[in-house]
Amino acid sequence: MSEGAPLPPALPPLLVERAVRHALAEDLGGAGDITTDQIVPADAKGEAAIVAKEPGVIAGLDLAEAAFKVLDPEARFTRAVADGDIVAEGGQIATVAGQTRALLTAERTALNFLGRLSGIATLTASYVAAIAGTHARIASTRKTTPGLRAFEKYAVRAGGGVSHRFGLYDAVLVKDNHLAAAGGLTNALERLKGKSGHLVRIEVEVDTLDQLAEALRFPIDAVLLDNMDIDTLRQAVKLVAGRTVTEASGGVTLETVREIALTGVDVISVGALTHSPRNLDSSLEWAS
Amino acid sequence: MSEGAPLPPALPPLLVERAVRHALAEDLGGAGDITTDQIVPADAKGEAAIVAKEPGVIAGLDLAEAAFKVLDPEARFTRAVADGDIVAEGGQIATVAGQTRALLTAERTALNFLGRLSGIATLTASYVAAIAGTHARIASTRKTTPGLRAFEKYAVRAGGGVSHRFGLYDAVLVKDNHLAAAGGLTNALERLKGKSGHLVRIEVEVDTLDQLAEALRFPIDAVLLDNMDIDTLRQAVKLVAGRTVTEASGGVTLETVREIALTGVDVISVGALTHSPRNLDSSLEWAS
Amino acid sequence: MSEGAPLPPALPPLLVERAVRHALAEDLGGAGDITTDQIVPADAKGEAAIVAKEPGVIAGLDLAEAAFKVLDPEARFTRAVADGDIVAEGGQIATVAGQTRALLTAERTALNFLGRLSGIATLTASYVAAIAGTHARIASTRKTTPGLRAFEKYAVRAGGGVSHRFGLYDAVLVKDNHLAAAGGLTNALERLKGKSGHLVRIEVEVDTLDQLAEALRFPIDAVLLDNMDIDTLRQAVKLVAGRTVTEASGGVTLETVREIALTGVDVISVGALTHSPRNLDSSLEWAS
Amino acid sequence: MSEGAPLPPALPPLLVERAVRHALAEDLGGAGDITTDQIVPADAKGEAAIVAKEPGVIAGLDLAEAAFKVLDPEARFTRAVADGDIVAEGGQIATVAGQTRALLTAERTALNFLGRLSGIATLTASYVAAIAGTHARIASTRKTTPGLRAFEKYAVRAGGGVSHRFGLYDAVLVKDNHLAAAGGLTNALERLKGKSGHLVRIEVEVDTLDQLAEALRFPIDAVLLDNMDIDTLRQAVKLVAGRTVTEASGGVTLETVREIALTGVDVISVGALTHSPRNLDSSLEWAS
Amino acid sequence: MSEGAPLPPALPPLLVERAVRHALAEDLGGAGDITTDQIVPADAKGEAAIVAKEPGVIAGLDLAEAAFKVLDPEARFTRAVADGDIVAEGGQIATVAGQTRALLTAERTALNFLGRLSGIATLTASYVAAIAGTHARIASTRKTTPGLRAFEKYAVRAGGGVSHRFGLYDAVLVKDNHLAAAGGLTNALERLKGKSGHLVRIEVEVDTLDQLAEALRFPIDAVLLDNMDIDTLRQAVKLVAGRTVTEASGGVTLETVREIALTGVDVISVGALTHSPRNLDSSLEWAS
Amino acid sequence: MSEGAPLPPALPPLLVERAVRHALAEDLGGAGDITTDQIVPADAKGEAAIVAKEPGVIAGLDLAEAAFKVLDPEARFTRAVADGDIVAEGGQIATVAGQTRALLTAERTALNFLGRLSGIATLTASYVAAIAGTHARIASTRKTTPGLRAFEKYAVRAGGGVSHRFGLYDAVLVKDNHLAAAGGLTNALERLKGKSGHLVRIEVEVDTLDQLAEALRFPIDAVLLDNMDIDTLRQAVKLVAGRTVTEASGGVTLETVREIALTGVDVISVGALTHSPRNLDSSLEWAS
Repeated sequence: MSEGAPLPPALPPLLVERAVRHALAEDLGGAGDITTDQIVPADAKGEAAIVAKEPGVIAGLDLAEAAFKVLDPEARFTRAVADGDIVAEGGQIATVAGQTRALLTAERTALNFLGRLSGIATLTASYVAAIAGTHARIASTRKTTPGLRAFEKYAVRAGGGVSHRFGLYDAVLVKDNHLAAAGGLTNALERLKGKSGHLVRIEVEVDTLDQLAEALRFPIDAVLLDNMDIDTLRQAVKLVAGRTVTEASGGVTLETVREIALTGVDVISVGALTHSPRNLDSSLEWAS
Repeated sequence: MSEGAPLPPALPPLLVERAVRHALAEDLGGAGDITTDQIVPADAKGEAAIVAKEPGVIAGLDLAEAAFKVLDPEARFTRAVADGDIVAEGGQIATVAGQTRALLTAERTALNFLGRLSGIATLTASYVAAIAGTHARIASTRKTTPGLRAFEKYAVRAGGGVSHRFGLYDAVLVKDNHLAAAGGLTNALERLKGKSGHLVRIEVEVDTLDQLAEALRFPIDAVLLDNMDIDTLRQAVKLVAGRTVTEASGGVTLETVREIALTGVDVISVGALTHSPRNLDSSLEWAS
Repeated sequence: MSEGAPLPPALPPLLVERAVRHALAEDLGGAGDITTDQIVPADAKGEAAIVAKEPGVIAGLDLAEAAFKVLDPEARFTRAVADGDIVAEGGQIATVAGQTRALLTAERTALNFLGRLSGIATLTASYVAAIAGTHARIASTRKTTPGLRAFEKYAVRAGGGVSHRFGLYDAVLVKDNHLAAAGGLTNALERLKGKSGHLVRIEVEVDTLDQLAEALRFPIDAVLLDNMDIDTLRQAVKLVAGRTVTEASGGVTLETVREIALTGVDVISVGALTHSPRNLDSSLEWAS
Repeated sequence: MSEGAPLPPALPPLLVERAVRHALAEDLGGAGDITTDQIVPADAKGEAAIVAKEPGVIAGLDLAEAAFKVLDPEARFTRAVADGDIVAEGGQIATVAGQTRALLTAERTALNFLGRLSGIATLTASYVAAIAGTHARIASTRKTTPGLRAFEKYAVRAGGGVSHRFGLYDAVLVKDNHLAAAGGLTNALERLKGKSGHLVRIEVEVDTLDQLAEALRFPIDAVLLDNMDIDTLRQAVKLVAGRTVTEASGGVTLETVREIALTGVDVISVGALTHSPRNLDSSLEWAS
Repeated sequence: MSEGAPLPPALPPLLVERAVRHALAEDLGGAGDITTDQIVPADAKGEAAIVAKEPGVIAGLDLAEAAFKVLDPEARFTRAVADGDIVAEGGQIATVAGQTRALLTAERTALNFLGRLSGIATLTASYVAAIAGTHARIASTRKTTPGLRAFEKYAVRAGGGVSHRFGLYDAVLVKDNHLAAAGGLTNALERLKGKSGHLVRIEVEVDTLDQLAEALRFPIDAVLLDNMDIDTLRQAVKLVAGRTVTEASGGVTLETVREIALTGVDVISVGALTHSPRNLDSSLEWAS
Repeated sequence: MSEGAPLPPALPPLLVERAVRHALAEDLGGAGDITTDQIVPADAKGEAAIVAKEPGVIAGLDLAEAAFKVLDPEARFTRAVADGDIVAEGGQIATVAGQTRALLTAERTALNFLGRLSGIATLTASYVAAIAGTHARIASTRKTTPGLRAFEKYAVRAGGGVSHRFGLYDAVLVKDNHLAAAGGLTNALERLKGKSGHLVRIEVEVDTLDQLAEALRFPIDAVLLDNMDIDTLRQAVKLVAGRTVTEASGGVTLETVREIALTGVDVISVGALTHSPRNLDSSLEWAS
């Protein structure tokens, strides 16, 4: 790895095994895998390959590996690709060898994680490709699957996107509902002054150029330009003139994203990356 | 409700609040909602409506309600529709009144649950509509989001589908990998004899008509006809001749599902219902 | 193992270590084993044998082993018998070698699990032996110790019995209270039609032959003949005539079970297997 | 309540609801009560009585009540008796009114707790009655059901017994295995000196009168006279001469307990109270 | 509350009750409050006041209230002051009325939380007072009690301080160990470029003016001036010249903090606020 | 280790890893260590030393070790001292080698545990040293940090002190509030008779010599002499005359503790040991 080159994203420690155990427990219930346990002897060993049934960007190998290893700590999981890599249709993603029971029992859990995260990474990569050559970046939102946010945010990064807020706790984002509740922008932003820690960024959502002008009178870090048409976005970028980060948001699609990027905004956030990806289809193919 | 009419599906007790608390904790972290807490006074009250931004079938109102009530037990959540109902674009789904902070903080969690489950119900309803007039039923699979299976299976029922196995524990489903590991169909099915409880059903996956004929020599409850073309499916149904339940599976789409149903199969299972639904878009509109 | 022979029952993954940790935590509290920690040096090693103090059928070795290994991952646990095997009075069940502290601290937890599960397996084996030569099978019920159901159902299988429903979730069992609440059998069974998944079995409890005749008009999978005397059971079996599975239940004892089996019923469910077994007595004998 | 009279035992806060939720979750799985939910409308209300099917001492009403109230917080649970009271066969224990679904779904969980704890209380009361007029007390041991110790210890007190150690953490009990590991009694008891807090009692297990004489040279709080015959017990009590508490243990039965008590020992501990009670049979009778 | 005035800090939802239940469970074990349960009848009611035994700034009333209400949901807890208020020695903090058992059992848990958080708030207020008139702010660090960070960060804000990072997850803070591992500042900061989300702030720790100069060549949000003497701090502030936030850190005491503030730094972080506060002494005084 | 010599205190099994995982999760949130993950390659290895920045008594090495090993199970943690040992300023406490990411990420969690527990051990050792030559022992109280009691009680023992009650569950301590609620000492102590198990000790708090005389009429194990002046303490010890254990409590400081010990009391309990220790300062020094 060359000095100073960006490192690949990392899944946070502790969360992987916890999520995998939870998913396996959901699938096993109290009786366990009653098919496998009645058909496959406890001492049988086997080997299988995880194969992509369509092309895409892989994400979530740690989760797939953990699914097998929680049930068989001695299982060997060998990666043919790394998270963030592209696989072709029919391409091998990984192989796994170990107790046959563990392999059959963990198969669905492993593929459910891998399919969802790879689907997100693949969709993200499409958006990133669509804006190639512009300086904008594709960001995820908080529209994630309850319970899986850390993994889905990771999958967006594996696909070439960046993170936005992780939650309500790590950045201030003042939205229209806040303004209504606080009695307007001035009150809202006054209340923030001097109370936020010096490591907390502040972003303000605006719907119009007038609101944008009002927001720019305050020392904010970013503006979220919500649901603006291309022309208005262009004017907004011009009005900001580099004083703060600009983010476009609202109904972004693969068809519209390049045009939006060309307005000069810094960030384009896309809820669909995490709320409506298609699973990347893969299967466990048994080595005969 | 007329005597004997089928009852609407029910979300299992205990799971709703647990899932909602987990999702809220994921969004709140250690610092909480640092935007709302700094802008909205603790004693402010407010009211808002959840509005559909596109037409669809609603599912998950219990989860949305719980998201608000966990943060404000006194909040009033009033449903304009019930799970399983269709809403039009712009249609009101529910209103909620209570502490402004609770409403703003729970908004995303409530909508994330509602959007995903309604997306699943809506997609299911499309499949159910596509096979109207046939005797087949649409079933979900185990390709669910890790941690959300009970809710996603529920959403399929809200959309008019039926459940399949809930997990590895509540029915026997012998798949090709099992046959390989057990040394063939005979061995596998012999091992099941007399060991399964009398309340456990047994289904066997077959890929060919030959395998089907072999399976039918055993007292099984259902056959999963995997990835067969329409013509083969038709022959398979004829071969079974009502002796057991027939299920078609594999790459079913909205385009192909009716043709499949017309082959006479009893059940059509569709993984996409739960692994690749589009979120149903809705928003929280503040009452001014 | 011969091809196609039934496999021994399997304890579901994940549950064993969780239950053992919970039990150890209950015994250790915040202060830990204050006797052992003050008397036995941390580096002492020891070896001991688990010995049966009465004859019986063993079940629960995985739990006993886990109790020692959670406290000393390097401990060696060597089984002299397998779950389902019969031991004589004084017979050795297993030996364990490792840190003396871990052995002494885990002793009671290991024996508490082993004693209860072996007690269940032994009692089940008595019932199974009592009906030898008949075609009936002995089944467990949901009258299990709260928190230990998966293990107790397993112990019944280790003793030669079969499982019934695991819980409220994996089969439909319509009981008299349901009929009252639903306004009679017809309403109840009409409501079930078309809503249950195709892998869910349906059983109906009947108290009289009239009720039985009524139930048989519906496509059910089993009838629970509740608290019928021998003569009525015999008539019931005749009335059913093989159209559905017959289960006898209610106040079954070792004295009455054979007579019940001889009526021709398929399944005899015995609550006492799990709600009132005697612990199988065993002890940890220190190797001097 | 008269001044200074002993108070009835109390179940520790926090544990009841946690155990009940765990037990309900075990019974409900992911799909919930699929019988009740398909047959009983959500808005149906009902009422039922818990009735004893055999005479006994009741314990565990808090747990039974919680089982219903967790599922229907508005349910009314009315006690006909209190924990520790005797009920006759057919006697009413409590009534419960509320949502029919909640009543049917919680029934088994409520009865499983009530049956086990009442079984323990009833068995304890038999032992207490058997030694009436002696000064000995009946004590429970650590041979409890994993996960239910607090409740089972409580049931023993409800039946008139007393507690022993709750776990490894709240008293020192030096057993033979400790002596072996520590290199004899002197070493073991020397190590305890000055290290135990002043609120921790110390008991030593002895098998012979010689060991007893050796133990009495140390400032201990109690001696456990293990598996001694009646004559030896009598000599042991004489040898102790009131200098410390005497406890008889080992194979105590209802047949032998009075003779043991008449030796003059202070405490008789009976493992069978918690490891092998018979459930007290009760049922939920629906009010028509 | 005047429009736009800063709001008091808020404890994040969900965490309070969870922490209080955990603390109560730690104190209650399996046997519960064996003193109170044996002495105080279950139906006794009482009233008591929480009184400060020394002057200070109060924080943690939500936790104290929850301790009583978890055990007695009907208890009334009436605050005499709010979090952030100063109390004099002997001043009343709150009164609580309810079941006597609940009051006695929860007393220590309530006071343990209140004492620790009020101790932190009081210490913070001393530091804030010491720098009155300067423009610097007092910040907490990650040197918090494991498991209590959210509460301790809150107590710092109640005492007039601000938060720093909440954890490793909500801001980038490059420390000397990172530089060593990354092969110098340039590599480290290059790697951060374009990968961090636009809402994540970046701070760099520097030990010398040379390092400071090097860091300022990058677009960072803050510099942590670690363990610099007063003169160096003054030069550092001059060198920065408002281009980024300056933070002084390392061995700050009440004696040195004002001098540090007068160097012109923006933030002074003080580990001792949370790692070494003195508890604020208070007691529960029983109303006779 | 010589025969019969007291053994060092032991941290209870199971609790260490649970607490460390909880603390790491608190620090890592959903995004993980965003500084380290972006700067340090996943395969980098490193080595560092934990060094004391001031003299003191070490406690908590198991927790520090676990912090690193949870993140890198292959990490090597080598202790330079044992818990209970004294280190000088600059003295090495341990070294740790492993994945650089794990070392940097776990650093603060390891030091937070080590600093707090070593601070408690050091403070305890000061008190123990102050009463050298007297026969009194220094005891901890229940004024511990919520969630950390087992560790803090352990640290007191590592510093040479002894434990008091661990919680409300393991000994009876009748305090003034109990007496008020029970209607006086006689009622209270009558209620305890015959109900406590024979392994539960009973202590009574008294404020005056009259109360002491009254308490001594009952068979109690200890008296807590609360907030008495030196002269009264001396008279109290004389009055007790060895019939029960005497404990002094209330506002004990390093200045007053020796004088208190010289009154002849057996135990001096000091809340400040656990509620207001200063952290022992240490740091992780990177091996270049």
